[in-house]
Amino acid sequence: MSGVWRLFGVWPMPQQITQSTDRYLLSPQSFSFSYSKDSAAQSGCSVLDSAFKRYYSLIFPDAADGARKTEFSINTLVAAGAAALKAQSVWGALRGRVYSLIYSLHCIYYFVNKTEIQDFPRFEFRGLLLDTSRHYLPLNAILKTLDAMAYSKFNVFHWHIVDDPSFPYQSYSYPDLSSKGAFHPMTHIYTQSDVKRVISHARMRGIRVIPEFDTPGHTQSWGKGQPNLLTPCYKGDVPSGTFGPVNPILDSTYQFMSGLFKEMKSVFPDSYVHLGGDEVNFACWKSNPNVRAFMTKMGFGHDYTKLESYYIENIVNISSALNKTPIVWQDVFDYRERIPKDTVLEIWKGVPADYRTELAKITHAGYRVLLSAPWYINHISYGQDWRNSYTVQPQNFSGTDQQKALVIGGEVCMWGEYVDATNLHPRLWPRACAAAERLWSNEEMTSNVDQAFPRLEKFRCSLIRRGIQAEPLFVGYCKDEYRGV
Amino acid sequence: MSGVWRLFGVWPMPQQITQSTDRYLLSPQSFSFSYSKDSAAQSGCSVLDSAFKRYYSLIFPDAADGARKTEFSINTLVAAGAAALKAQSVWGALRGRVYSLIYSLHCIYYFVNKTEIQDFPRFEFRGLLLDTSRHYLPLNAILKTLDAMAYSKFNVFHWHIVDDPSFPYQSYSYPDLSSKGAFHPMTHIYTQSDVKRVISHARMRGIRVIPEFDTPGHTQSWGKGQPNLLTPCYKGDVPSGTFGPVNPILDSTYQFMSGLFKEMKSVFPDSYVHLGGDEVNFACWKSNPNVRAFMTKMGFGHDYTKLESYYIENIVNISSALNKTPIVWQDVFDYRERIPKDTVLEIWKGVPADYRTELAKITHAGYRVLLSAPWYINHISYGQDWRNSYTVQPQNFSGTDQQKALVIGGEVCMWGEYVDATNLHPRLWPRACAAAERLWSNEEMTSNVDQAFPRLEKFRCSLIRRGIQAEPLFVGYCKDEYRGV
Repeated sequence: MSGVWRLFGVWPMPQQITQSTDRYLLSPQSFSFSYSKDSAAQSGCSVLDSAFKRYYSLIFPDAADGARKTEFSINTLVAAGAAALKAQSVWGALRGRVYSLIYSLHCIYYFVNKTEIQDFPRFEFRGLLLDTSRHYLPLNAILKTLDAMAYSKFNVFHWHIVDDPSFPYQSYSYPDLSSKGAFHPMTHIYTQSDVKRVISHARMRGIRVIPEFDTPGHTQSWGKGQPNLLTPCYKGDVPSGTFGPVNPILDSTYQFMSGLFKEMKSVFPDSYVHLGGDEVNFACWKSNPNVRAFMTKMGFGHDYTKLESYYIENIVNISSALNKTPIVWQDVFDYRERIPKDTVLEIWKGVPADYRTELAKITHAGYRVLLSAPWYINHISYGQDWRNSYTVQPQNFSGTDQQKALVIGGEVCMWGEYVDATNLHPRLWPRACAAAERLWSNEEMTSNVDQAFPRLEKFRCSLIRRGIQAEPLFVGYCKDEYRGV
Repeated sequence: MSGVWRLFGVWPMPQQITQSTDRYLLSPQSFSFSYSKDSAAQSGCSVLDSAFKRYYSLIFPDAADGARKTEFSINTLVAAGAAALKAQSVWGALRGRVYSLIYSLHCIYYFVNKTEIQDFPRFEFRGLLLDTSRHYLPLNAILKTLDAMAYSKFNVFHWHIVDDPSFPYQSYSYPDLSSKGAFHPMTHIYTQSDVKRVISHARMRGIRVIPEFDTPGHTQSWGKGQPNLLTPCYKGDVPSGTFGPVNPILDSTYQFMSGLFKEMKSVFPDSYVHLGGDEVNFACWKSNPNVRAFMTKMGFGHDYTKLESYYIENIVNISSALNKTPIVWQDVFDYRERIPKDTVLEIWKGVPADYRTELAKITHAGYRVLLSAPWYINHISYGQDWRNSYTVQPQNFSGTDQQKALVIGGEVCMWGEYVDATNLHPRLWPRACAAAERLWSNEEMTSNVDQAFPRLEKFRCSLIRRGIQAEPLFVGYCKDEYRGV
């Protein structure tokens, strides 16, 4: 690899890149994208057509005031040349953008060095979780996040759309869920049209949208709009007035879930669905005499993990019947529910020693796995904490090559306890970029965090130029920052 | 104190407040501010005239679309009434605003409960420091910060305007300082007109602007535009090419400083000036043979604190000659420079045990003191770290009442290593509000941090409504947040 100095702004690092000092001048006036004659994709492919439009203005940020620019006869300086991009799919072509290689001098001339790139992602699943229940995130905050995700080659938006505090998803089958469970029934909701817009905005950027409807725990807000869904907790012999997890003993529960997931199938096209399954508190179930009677009837004894398994098994079956591949949090594996082998487990707990043990266990059992534990970037600390995210080694655990291959990727999680639209973007960017490179790039080529620093610093400046409110890594400045973002 | 439920949004807590359940309806159409006949201030007082205009739109945020509102004949409901505000000065009147008491129902009717307030600040000096050297802050970010400061009754903007990384202040006497020392000579600077705008914006909000030109350390950026100002460091017998603190042995240094401070006197009207004086590294001075010769000549031996004292003494004398009261960091006291008794010492080091010892020492020596050490809110951590700021007790140290009276206030410091316009506002607000209340309110009335929480949460929502990008304290929502800030 030569000419690393020109790679400053390239993030994540491509698998192979060769650069020479030959450089070409690009002219905003004559530059264009076109489809190769033998390409399966041709003009009319909306994903690429609109990407070309976006990429053009990223390459030539000042081309809007092009009229003045033509006063300089820069066309006369243009080197004859063209660039070719081969990709196996539209999505590959989408991510095969090269605009980070292009640099400008004096904001008038645009150059690119002669470069050859062979690239592919190390992991197929490079996700980012937003939590829209603990705080509502306005639609624009989500769309902007999708923009920034695409710049870092994230390809999955994990939408933790509902949880205990609020239920902002406006269901057409069960409208009371949001009208009674959202922070505000009119302003703090995602309408069907909002959801469509998110899915379409994501798709145009090569990002799949996986919604999470987490049950049986984390469902307090569901209870407001869906009577008899949650388990009534008891104090002694009488209901206490509070409610616990979803009530797993009623047929009506599964009828409701079936209806809701049928709606989800029609709304969210992705083949994955996240079913949650984390942090179920058994105290309320234990307090309820009807639940206890059910336990006896089913032969579960006093083992409430069996009741949870029973519930999750039913929900997994509902989603499988709808041809959705379930993702669940690691808790579901830890309780050893009988779940289909195509289920993906997501690891969220513990320090490296813990999640490495879990990686080994889950892959040993033959399940595919996603790693999130080291990427809970809602946790902040003073200074450059992106370095911790960067040095994560997702396949560094005891296991065979087959086991390692079951690690399909990971997710950056931005839980919402302390985050809303006021601080989302600067907390996400460029901190999330560290995981983005870890999930995309060759581990050896990106093993040195100090070498990554100036490249990430430059990349952060290009995020700023593209309107993403990415916070600084350290003392310094970006050329375009002085106006504020 | 009764009716605390209505005080939710009032921050900082007034010294005395009595509320009854009698409530009055306010009409945007008939509401007006007017001067009392026997008031010294009358219409034409620009500070109050423009405050009235601002306060009106804070009281009636939806009054802009008033045309529609008049369809409701709410005038017929208006209780006959008036409110009186007595203040000893224009600045008192400015801060005696009551709009936080006013609340709306259905965004149509505005109410205020019958309320009597007696109020005054516990400390006269309630400052906030911004660092515009480690990152440049665009003018708007500073003006917005002043707005938010006024809402929390801060009254001093400590402008740490220059430091090692950059010199953004555009001096008319020494234009090379910014043209060579700023991150960018045209975009990353504060022109004279920018500075005037900051001072005027601050003044209209009852905020004084105290610039800090920190010397002799923290001056790397000065050296770029002012030859021979910094000490050449030596490696053995030859200059190493690097530079250390300001060179204290040259007459030219003091001529330059004299010229610069004369300019500052004409630019910054405040009677205080911050002279810095912190963290002077002696290694470079020690390496320089000319400095060593000067030490011998002056009889300083090998005690470089004496050289620092000598320098600071000269600078203090320059500022005193210009009728400015100097503020310096605690280091100056720690080295026991001979400094005038009206100098204010600012404590920035250490844990409570350390800064309490320092408070006792400095006040015992008869100097006035500012406390900043516990309010370095550039340091962030996960969760509600405002609670730590809130429980600070500035006068809790061993000393006489006379000593305690020498604590004139404190400052929240937002150093710029990791902060620029992308994340400044959410890191400042509402976290800085904790110190604002500690510096304004009665300590006993505000001793319970859990009781403060819901009031601060509500106040944070009013900051959001006023356009300040204040981050959330915890799970929940604000009425107006759904559009994004």
